[in-house]
Amino acid sequence: MAELPAVPLTLEGAYVLHQMFRVRRAAWRALDESTREHVAEEAALVLHGMEQQRSPNGHPNQSAVYSEIGHKSDLLVLHFRDSLEQVHCAELALARLEVFDYLEPVHSYLSIVELGLYDSTIKTYGQLCEQAIEAHSPEWNAGVAEVIARQSTAMEPRLYPEIPAAKYLCFYPMDRKRGEGKNWYQLPLAERQRMMHEHGLIGRRYADSVRQIITGSIGFDDWEWGVDLFADEPMVFKKLIYEMRFDEVSAVYALFGAFYVGLRVSATGLGRLLSGEL
Amino acid sequence: MAELPAVPLTLEGAYVLHQMFRVRRAAWRALDESTREHVAEEAALVLHGMEQQRSPNGHPNQSAVYSEIGHKSDLLVLHFRDSLEQVHCAELALARLEVFDYLEPVHSYLSIVELGLYDSTIKTYGQLCEQAIEAHSPEWNAGVAEVIARQSTAMEPRLYPEIPAAKYLCFYPMDRKRGEGKNWYQLPLAERQRMMHEHGLIGRRYADSVRQIITGSIGFDDWEWGVDLFADEPMVFKKLIYEMRFDEVSAVYALFGAFYVGLRVSATGLGRLLSGEL
Amino acid sequence: MAELPAVPLTLEGAYVLHQMFRVRRAAWRALDESTREHVAEEAALVLHGMEQQRSPNGHPNQSAVYSEIGHKSDLLVLHFRDSLEQVHCAELALARLEVFDYLEPVHSYLSIVELGLYDSTIKTYGQLCEQAIEAHSPEWNAGVAEVIARQSTAMEPRLYPEIPAAKYLCFYPMDRKRGEGKNWYQLPLAERQRMMHEHGLIGRRYADSVRQIITGSIGFDDWEWGVDLFADEPMVFKKLIYEMRFDEVSAVYALFGAFYVGLRVSATGLGRLLSGEL
Amino acid sequence: MAELPAVPLTLEGAYVLHQMFRVRRAAWRALDESTREHVAEEAALVLHGMEQQRSPNGHPNQSAVYSEIGHKSDLLVLHFRDSLEQVHCAELALARLEVFDYLEPVHSYLSIVELGLYDSTIKTYGQLCEQAIEAHSPEWNAGVAEVIARQSTAMEPRLYPEIPAAKYLCFYPMDRKRGEGKNWYQLPLAERQRMMHEHGLIGRRYADSVRQIITGSIGFDDWEWGVDLFADEPMVFKKLIYEMRFDEVSAVYALFGAFYVGLRVSATGLGRLLSGEL
Amino acid sequence: MAELPAVPLTLEGAYVLHQMFRVRRAAWRALDESTREHVAEEAALVLHGMEQQRSPNGHPNQSAVYSEIGHKSDLLVLHFRDSLEQVHCAELALARLEVFDYLEPVHSYLSIVELGLYDSTIKTYGQLCEQAIEAHSPEWNAGVAEVIARQSTAMEPRLYPEIPAAKYLCFYPMDRKRGEGKNWYQLPLAERQRMMHEHGLIGRRYADSVRQIITGSIGFDDWEWGVDLFADEPMVFKKLIYEMRFDEVSAVYALFGAFYVGLRVSATGLGRLLSGEL
Repeated sequence: MAELPAVPLTLEGAYVLHQMFRVRRAAWRALDESTREHVAEEAALVLHGMEQQRSPNGHPNQSAVYSEIGHKSDLLVLHFRDSLEQVHCAELALARLEVFDYLEPVHSYLSIVELGLYDSTIKTYGQLCEQAIEAHSPEWNAGVAEVIARQSTAMEPRLYPEIPAAKYLCFYPMDRKRGEGKNWYQLPLAERQRMMHEHGLIGRRYADSVRQIITGSIGFDDWEWGVDLFADEPMVFKKLIYEMRFDEVSAVYALFGAFYVGLRVSATGLGRLLSGEL
Repeated sequence: MAELPAVPLTLEGAYVLHQMFRVRRAAWRALDESTREHVAEEAALVLHGMEQQRSPNGHPNQSAVYSEIGHKSDLLVLHFRDSLEQVHCAELALARLEVFDYLEPVHSYLSIVELGLYDSTIKTYGQLCEQAIEAHSPEWNAGVAEVIARQSTAMEPRLYPEIPAAKYLCFYPMDRKRGEGKNWYQLPLAERQRMMHEHGLIGRRYADSVRQIITGSIGFDDWEWGVDLFADEPMVFKKLIYEMRFDEVSAVYALFGAFYVGLRVSATGLGRLLSGEL
Repeated sequence: MAELPAVPLTLEGAYVLHQMFRVRRAAWRALDESTREHVAEEAALVLHGMEQQRSPNGHPNQSAVYSEIGHKSDLLVLHFRDSLEQVHCAELALARLEVFDYLEPVHSYLSIVELGLYDSTIKTYGQLCEQAIEAHSPEWNAGVAEVIARQSTAMEPRLYPEIPAAKYLCFYPMDRKRGEGKNWYQLPLAERQRMMHEHGLIGRRYADSVRQIITGSIGFDDWEWGVDLFADEPMVFKKLIYEMRFDEVSAVYALFGAFYVGLRVSATGLGRLLSGEL
Repeated sequence: MAELPAVPLTLEGAYVLHQMFRVRRAAWRALDESTREHVAEEAALVLHGMEQQRSPNGHPNQSAVYSEIGHKSDLLVLHFRDSLEQVHCAELALARLEVFDYLEPVHSYLSIVELGLYDSTIKTYGQLCEQAIEAHSPEWNAGVAEVIARQSTAMEPRLYPEIPAAKYLCFYPMDRKRGEGKNWYQLPLAERQRMMHEHGLIGRRYADSVRQIITGSIGFDDWEWGVDLFADEPMVFKKLIYEMRFDEVSAVYALFGAFYVGLRVSATGLGRLLSGEL
Repeated sequence: MAELPAVPLTLEGAYVLHQMFRVRRAAWRALDESTREHVAEEAALVLHGMEQQRSPNGHPNQSAVYSEIGHKSDLLVLHFRDSLEQVHCAELALARLEVFDYLEPVHSYLSIVELGLYDSTIKTYGQLCEQAIEAHSPEWNAGVAEVIARQSTAMEPRLYPEIPAAKYLCFYPMDRKRGEGKNWYQLPLAERQRMMHEHGLIGRRYADSVRQIITGSIGFDDWEWGVDLFADEPMVFKKLIYEMRFDEVSAVYALFGAFYVGLRVSATGLGRLLSGEL
């Protein structure tokens, strides 16, 4: 039997943009109160609309605002949209607001909701190989496309999710290691599938208390994946990630970027937040 | 006997935020004296309240101010609180002060008081295994929860500590190495327990002259742990950390971030400090 | 037979400069409308001319404008020119525009269109060696120069390309690894040729949906190559680069810099873009 | 015989702070001449006092000013003091000066004069072991304390040195490598002693032309040691450090930070220096 | 025969400072035309003098101005001087100019012209060893000094060079690797000599089209060497450096910093350049 292709099948859904801002508090404070009110109302109106938006095909196309902890950022705005252009339009819509003069963009992350199908990949590639279908041949591509289409329909709510209403958000980007000795991208597909399966078991034990959305960012941003964790009790971020760190795929192959932690605030609370009140 | 789970039990206590600020001295100096006095008094009042605060359940929920040495930061404000939301409220309370216009946030660190229970972990996991209880089964979880609850009660004063009154503070973050050859997260639990035990013996020899508070920051900030050392004689920072560097767990597995060293100042001295006087 | 020289033959074409700018939106917004119009028109005129430019010898010498996603940059201007001096003149022409006061240069990348001729190299070096011609002798150099000249003529449209009209651009720089164990520059020529060939097969499968331009930047900028991908459907950036990451040459030897993703905008739309409208 | 403890004995002396500033030349130039004179005189008076200071116990407690070469910093102020608090007071004394509005703190380094006693350590530990005294027992600690006390007295002039009057200063921080294969902190004490001895022989050959002061910064700043070289002929910095780089302890185990090179200027020349004249 | 010392002999010549500036174009443009003219003329006069300067002993002590490509810097000023103090005086002379208010120092590099004498070193050390002269003995030092003196005289024009009049400059710093497995500073002298010899052969093949000046910066700046390439046709920068990258000493042991590429402009053209015209 020919060697299976190395690339696992993935499903993609909503494009996602994280925008992190520092608030220019001194400049904001220097405004007179009625200007602050007016500017905050304009922003709240636009963001409130984004909180509840749906695309014509019924997908949630929402944005959400978080008050961030620590110096790395004061405000995180999270956008889920059906297309990259719509994500960019959301970004520009914020840039047009007067409140933008009091927000300094200090970080961002562009990615797309991704579901990795390691189990389906093994099964699909195996069946195609058994039928002696050559990889990347039209028959192969058709077989793969059929799986992708079927699974995309089945998984639609997870591919185009509502932004969970949880009180806390933890976001961080990550890579898989490509070291001189340990290289994720050189492991056989089956070995990666095994490790991802074990990794998934940990996540499942935390499913009641934390909602996880994985987004892929290869070709879009500087790390390979972004991870968003949503929870009402933030201790679970530490417990889940610490437990995963001992898992083989994380222990050996995970590289982590900066962590951003914040509290959900409603668009209508933006003005108060700029003045330092939750 | 089944292999023991890799993850050591930990106790968590107060959430901790370190805020590091650069003082905008030229802008502060440019204020007239009465404005400086007024602004400093407002800040001193709020910070003085935070120095002495207790939570409804009697835990110290204190903040403390340090005058930092070197260009990395001029002022460090340290907050211990019962919840992440309260930590964020403390942060926002400072942001609302007029004095905040003269403070540039240059760094911060978010973490939670953590006590690692390597010895209890070995004992507890071992007993559960002897009873043929499967890891992560309801019985297992109940057994673990009972240990955590019991120890949390016993350790409450260390989990929700007063901020030590020592004259000097040394803060730094750290990671455990996950190299291609040397990987802390792949070591057997018993080997990690042995190394942490030896590590602890060094700390114990310095117990009279330095108070150490370890906080965990996996899922909260960019390093895995934060270390705060409190001492009246700062030489002990060097002696303790140098001796530990030869210890196996530090020599091989510790990665260190930036070090912040400062002198405790009282909230009422803040105005003088902004003008460059201790 | 003597060992073949290690250096593969390459063809060079147009010099390329990527300029990334942050828009100073508050300052732009603070201008009165007629000034904004006037400034935008002056810039649009110059950039519009650059969009359509040809060199005296008929090569496209074009520039193109992209609206970038995320905080890394708001505006990317891409220049292809026949000479390094002309690239610099294009850069200075932008610096002379009034609109430049509202653009902060935050990144750039200088490189030159490069076609690597691994297959021709093996063939040419082999033939010269069979004739017992010594490497770097005048005969050798003449033989090599003849191949370069012939191929440069044949490849002229790829060496001096039009900027593809695609809606999306993805740019990133990359290096080949020179690790202590894995070192691209120490591999035999034939092994590198084999890996580059396999790498090329992946690109070919995506040829209908993505146009790729490779530029070399050794001696010109901080990475060894720059990659520009042009596509109408941005998902292909992720699919192509993810698939390539499993390819031996990328999995083991590729190091990647920051990724920049944007949407093509016409020069005449620049004024609207500065005001936050596509 | 039991294994000797790994930690070498060290003597500590004066606390040392390096402060590096960028001069805000445009703002300085914008002052009228009489203000510049007045501001420079105030600063010169304070710094001149610091140049000649002694502590009550007769130690030099001096500061010195250097005009730095290159963009990394324009001005370096070096402080030696008997205590960390005095170092901080010197730092604050500068921050109170009007001239501070024209100095931007861009770097600093906090450390303490350190003499490593590898030879005495081997001898002392050996003698205590021969007497079957257990490491860290009261007898052991007393034996060690006696050596430290005796040597500290003998070495007092080197522990609390005058700032050498040499024309040039070269400062850089360094670490000892803790790699996966090569790890200084895992070497036996005797092997480290041997390498440090050989290292010292090189320094001794340069003793006539360069004065070296080693300061320890574990627990105080981001590297483990700081090195100050003082010489009248700056070529010796290159010659000495280049020769040492081939030495085993440097070749294998030394990691270097940024280098700062400057020329000594007197406090009374500060005003001229701010205006760009030596 | 005793082992030869590891340190190769080097000759040193002129001190060299590279200064890289960003032009504050908005502030420059905001000046009225006559002020711009006046400020540019003052700067041109000083820089023009530096272009043609000679030291009392007849060495060229020149400066040159380059218009840089890309965002890293707009203007590079290169100084060659007989002493470090003179280099610093040149730097301060620029800082005193009014035009300095429109130049932001963003990078610099301090080094000294260096000729590595690997071949002479092997020969000299060998002869001294054959005479059973002990390394670093007075006889040894005298023998070495005699070689250095003789070669310094012979090489004087290369040690104190004119700044080549070529149209393009490429500057980059570099280190020799000190990895855990591959460590330049642990190789035997003869092996280093062999590799440097092969490396030199490549450079010689490019001697007609590119002039190379190597400067040493150990003890002076953050990398070990700086490389300046001067050429009238910039493609040679890419060709030469790419070919060298396959050379053993570069492939395995070279680490490269940032690359700066610019076009030579005359001092009298400075005013036009600040306004964006070559």
